[in-house]
Amino acid sequence: MNIALIGAGNVATSLGMALQEAGFSIVQVYSRTEKAASLLSYRLHTSYTTDIRSIRSDVDVSVFSVKDDAIPLILQQIPFGKGLYVHTAGSVPATVFQPYAKRYGVFYPLQTFTKGREQSFKHIPILYEASSREDETLLQEIAAKLSDTTLPAGSDKRKYIHLSATFACNFTNHLYALAAEVLEEQQIPYQLLLPLIEETAAKIRSFHPKDSQTGPAIRRDMETVQQHLQLLTDKNKREIYDVLTQSILASNA
Amino acid sequence: MNIALIGAGNVATSLGMALQEAGFSIVQVYSRTEKAASLLSYRLHTSYTTDIRSIRSDVDVSVFSVKDDAIPLILQQIPFGKGLYVHTAGSVPATVFQPYAKRYGVFYPLQTFTKGREQSFKHIPILYEASSREDETLLQEIAAKLSDTTLPAGSDKRKYIHLSATFACNFTNHLYALAAEVLEEQQIPYQLLLPLIEETAAKIRSFHPKDSQTGPAIRRDMETVQQHLQLLTDKNKREIYDVLTQSILASNA
Repeated sequence: MNIALIGAGNVATSLGMALQEAGFSIVQVYSRTEKAASLLSYRLHTSYTTDIRSIRSDVDVSVFSVKDDAIPLILQQIPFGKGLYVHTAGSVPATVFQPYAKRYGVFYPLQTFTKGREQSFKHIPILYEASSREDETLLQEIAAKLSDTTLPAGSDKRKYIHLSATFACNFTNHLYALAAEVLEEQQIPYQLLLPLIEETAAKIRSFHPKDSQTGPAIRRDMETVQQHLQLLTDKNKREIYDVLTQSILASNA
Repeated sequence: MNIALIGAGNVATSLGMALQEAGFSIVQVYSRTEKAASLLSYRLHTSYTTDIRSIRSDVDVSVFSVKDDAIPLILQQIPFGKGLYVHTAGSVPATVFQPYAKRYGVFYPLQTFTKGREQSFKHIPILYEASSREDETLLQEIAAKLSDTTLPAGSDKRKYIHLSATFACNFTNHLYALAAEVLEEQQIPYQLLLPLIEETAAKIRSFHPKDSQTGPAIRRDMETVQQHLQLLTDKNKREIYDVLTQSILASNA
């Protein structure tokens, strides 16, 4: 099976490496930027292009791993063939391909990808959908070669999954950044929090997060809450502290 | 060294087990509730009391691991001896002991403790302070037998550390709970998020959380942000989404 990769960012890199390791042939990498395209194509021992009109239309599967808003712009410019067209975005409907391709779908790995941190796909859930039953089966087979967790999910359902991931990953990471700021203002390195952060993530393997909430708010320890609010001279952090404390108090009402 | 444990909750249990494993003698456990006191004393092969006036005053160290607001109430009622009195609370000053004891301090493990989940103390940072240089050294020695990360921290500094832990752990866990709600409303088990949550926590070992923020807000992908806000019919979640998105946008300004 021949695959073209459109995009050479963090997702494209991790996914491209994983696909190749699973035995698929990546026959072309496209990126706007020469540097990204050549680097990934070198790592995949394949060819690359930075010319959007040279994206190959004779492959079995074309995988789009670019920024959400770049997808429609690229689609307007490329030649189309008889292959299957998929993207890897959480919030973009599969139908973005509909004006251009007969066979299309989505191949969405539910994970956060960071530059310089390649990941095994083995435990990453892959959510897929396709415009036909046959192509859904095809995507399921590809997904199953990469990961032990594969799940059909239509565009509507995937939107909610992506939304939940924003809470669980993006917002969580921002809380880590705010916690780091509080420590660093006291000349303490943020790494002191690592065991706590890792245990917080690990314990929800054993307990539903609702059943394992800890801290002043869930204990209704309003003296500590007030003390914390007084320590927070930064308006933004105080607002976040307040909104999340109110939410914890209400969740246990 | 003889130690009395005042409290038999999650912290007292994990700490008591760790102290005993490190070779210290737990000679008494106190808890208001017979069940908790007897269970922990059984596990530590020691005696227990539920009578506050029977808390032993002839031990080397008395460790208070009870709710913050219970500490002053207990102190008013117990007999005092010549030993060292410490508590394990993040936000309570060491001076809570001052009216009662000559030798006092704090022994604060920076971790979240969950019932049914005992933890090795080896990687848990232990923050300590004491009313004298000698007792600070004593606490440092005890801490070093439990953990490879020990740190002197006065009550003022500890308050900020506890505050940062509230962001990094308590609020983070609440975001997990909100993410779980979003998924469960779609009949999807929250466990689908586990690899994402674990990678989000793990990657800050390699990258400062400020440098590894991902998601729609940091990409300035306002179309996805708007779409997410529309999906959130729950006012509380929408407010949290909005406040955290604003904060991410501002952090990158």
